[in-house]
Amino acid sequence: MKAAYYSGNQTFEVQPTDPEPVSSGMVRLKVAYCGVCGTDVHIYHGKMDQRVRLPQVIGHEVSAEIAELGEAVSDWQVGDKVAVRPLQPGLADPSDNGQRHIGKNLRFIGIDTPGGMQTYWNVPAYTLHRLPEQMPLELGALTEPLAVACHDVRLSRLQPGENAVIIGGGPIGVLIALVARHKGANVLLSEPNATRRALCQQLHLPAVDPMTTNLVNAVEAFTNGAMADVVFEVSGVAAGVKVMTELARARGRIVMVAIHSEPKPVDLFRFFWRELQLIGTRVYEPEDFDEAIRLAASAELPLDQLITQISPLEDIQSVFETIDNNPAGMKYLLKC
Amino acid sequence: MKAAYYSGNQTFEVQPTDPEPVSSGMVRLKVAYCGVCGTDVHIYHGKMDQRVRLPQVIGHEVSAEIAELGEAVSDWQVGDKVAVRPLQPGLADPSDNGQRHIGKNLRFIGIDTPGGMQTYWNVPAYTLHRLPEQMPLELGALTEPLAVACHDVRLSRLQPGENAVIIGGGPIGVLIALVARHKGANVLLSEPNATRRALCQQLHLPAVDPMTTNLVNAVEAFTNGAMADVVFEVSGVAAGVKVMTELARARGRIVMVAIHSEPKPVDLFRFFWRELQLIGTRVYEPEDFDEAIRLAASAELPLDQLITQISPLEDIQSVFETIDNNPAGMKYLLKC
Ligand SMILES: NC(=O)c1ccc[n+]([C@@H]2O[C@H](COP(=O)([O-])OP(=O)(O)OC[C@H]3O[C@@H](n4cnc5c(N)ncnc54)[C@H](O)[C@@H]3O)[C@@H](O)[C@H]2O)c1
Ligand SMILES: NC(=O)c1ccc[n+]([C@@H]2O[C@H](COP(=O)([O-])OP(=O)(O)OC[C@H]3O[C@@H](n4cnc5c(N)ncnc54)[C@H](O)[C@@H]3O)[C@@H](O)[C@H]2O)c1
Ligand SMILES: [Zn+2]
Ligand SMILES: [Zn+2]
Repeated sequence: MKAAYYSGNQTFEVQPTDPEPVSSGMVRLKVAYCGVCGTDVHIYHGKMDQRVRLPQVIGHEVSAEIAELGEAVSDWQVGDKVAVRPLQPGLADPSDNGQRHIGKNLRFIGIDTPGGMQTYWNVPAYTLHRLPEQMPLELGALTEPLAVACHDVRLSRLQPGENAVIIGGGPIGVLIALVARHKGANVLLSEPNATRRALCQQLHLPAVDPMTTNLVNAVEAFTNGAMADVVFEVSGVAAGVKVMTELARARGRIVMVAIHSEPKPVDLFRFFWRELQLIGTRVYEPEDFDEAIRLAASAELPLDQLITQISPLEDIQSVFETIDNNPAGMKYLLKC
Repeated sequence: MKAAYYSGNQTFEVQPTDPEPVSSGMVRLKVAYCGVCGTDVHIYHGKMDQRVRLPQVIGHEVSAEIAELGEAVSDWQVGDKVAVRPLQPGLADPSDNGQRHIGKNLRFIGIDTPGGMQTYWNVPAYTLHRLPEQMPLELGALTEPLAVACHDVRLSRLQPGENAVIIGGGPIGVLIALVARHKGANVLLSEPNATRRALCQQLHLPAVDPMTTNLVNAVEAFTNGAMADVVFEVSGVAAGVKVMTELARARGRIVMVAIHSEPKPVDLFRFFWRELQLIGTRVYEPEDFDEAIRLAASAELPLDQLITQISPLEDIQSVFETIDNNPAGMKYLLKC
């Protein structure tokens, strides 16, 4: 087997290794594909060196087949196709209020622990979700980011016929747009990157360029003055935070999907004035994975068009360099 | 009759005037008491001179008796005791989503139109809520701020047994605390002013001084580590906005009651990380007035202890000067 080790300094090293023994409650996966997430690129840039332990295998967007079962694992068989929900809840904290997926002691598999960019990967059996036999494993690797989108749309309480504006047309923003449209919403994206807007057009998702178009006017026109029932902030930039409060109708919901590492100025007056709501969302719960797999299997979403490139694991270094040089690409998969 | 005109430059002039004719759909009220709101103090400081039209009678926390009925007013009789819900909805805007109390064309009676600091005051009949015969009209003048508190607690979706932290123990913060406790919550206030904390103590509301106590630790101890289910930001200062996100449990609700006239830095990472919710709240809906009157009439809340001073309308200038010099006072009423 091979594993790709991130060893700091924007460097991956692909090395032959031996599979680890499979302990009780765990399964050994034969990884099919592992997608590259924005977080992986962050790690590559050295921004999370205090959280990963070098050298470390990273990656958490995995489709796989079960290669071996540890003790005390039932319900699964060697050869089953699966996606991994990469969350390892720790001890419950009283302030968690029972929310296991965002618990204080949660560990994120593939960041806080070794990830899926390797041939064989051991994970707890409870992280597995079954992929339908006929689903291409390339699509299966999109389950994790799609589950993020399902979670965000679910927590937004989006209703059919509502107007949803998505600020930021990266992989997560586009997946949110696809899920929201599938739920019956009228969706409009805001995305400055022309190549990404072209992809939106290909997906029949209307997208405006916030650098040349006044987004408030665009939303006004798109909604006949009703403004957005739901705004998803998925850009991660201050401009997105500034405009989000201007796009929502009275009692509109603003979903905070993006990770803003620094506090940013928010128009709190507008929250008061129009009784807006802000809803923070993080990762997913099991039902979001189920929904993501159902959606991917039904072929109701054009997910294959989101896959920019599939490369062998050996090419990981050049894949990360390509992503750095090409902010317009969407999903890069590593074939493990 | 007399009316107190705000004429700019921190000056009120009390003058004899003639009652206005009562047009159709309106009633003439004989004002009993009019409370002084923080907004009135803002107006007095000249901060809203673009919204009021000088010279103008202000005031919107009114208890009164009906003195005369205009045409087309049914359901009311001369002598009825009433409180006024000072909202005049304008034309519905598509972005209002049917929320009349925060509509784009809403006018606030007593700010955008003449207010209650006068002997007789004409208001639309639809703004009236009946006060029980036996309720002292002093308490009736607290209906409006109490309705704010009822609205805030209602939109917070507070459940009995939940932990609620109120940042800011001014009149609105204390009323929220009283309503929340009445709903069965465990409440803790944060208030730097010693006199206001002493009043809280008198009301058996625990209050900490955020200048000398670490509020996060205090909430941790108060809740046995569970942290706040609901946080009400009622201070209007940056320190309140900074700490609010640290006090809430996973999926906790933060209610934005205070008016922050400038955008302030908000820890959006924390909204994502713990899936927090921010809920903007503004004024009240009719049911909040009904609830406020029910609560005030039932004598279940020690509202009389919130009345700092009752002064004749003639003394309005000195009342506003006293408020300016004494940030520890709570509710000042003008006897009209
Ligand atoms: N909540 C969660 O659990 C979760 C999960 C995954 C990712 N995320 C976060 O979601 C965000 C989006 O993820 P992604 O992978 O799609 O990232 P991305 O960086 O690929 O996408 C962000 C997009 O925003 C666009 N953008 C930049 N400025 C803009 C502006 N002014 N207006 C509108 N768009 C603008 C960029 O061009 C880019 O396409 C990131 O902040 C990421 O950290 C959150
Ligand atoms: N949402 C609405 O419809 C509505 C209605 C009325 C009032 N308001 C707003 O609610 C807020 C409170 O109104 P109020 O009349 O009680 O005002 P207030 O100024 O009397 O009360 C604010 C309190 O916060 C305290 N404070 C200051 N710094 C603090 C800190 N760091 N931590 C905790 N507390 C701190 C002050 O000492 C003061 O007692 C104001 O911003 C007001 O504009 C909103
Ligand atoms: Zn990810
Ligand atoms: Zn007021």
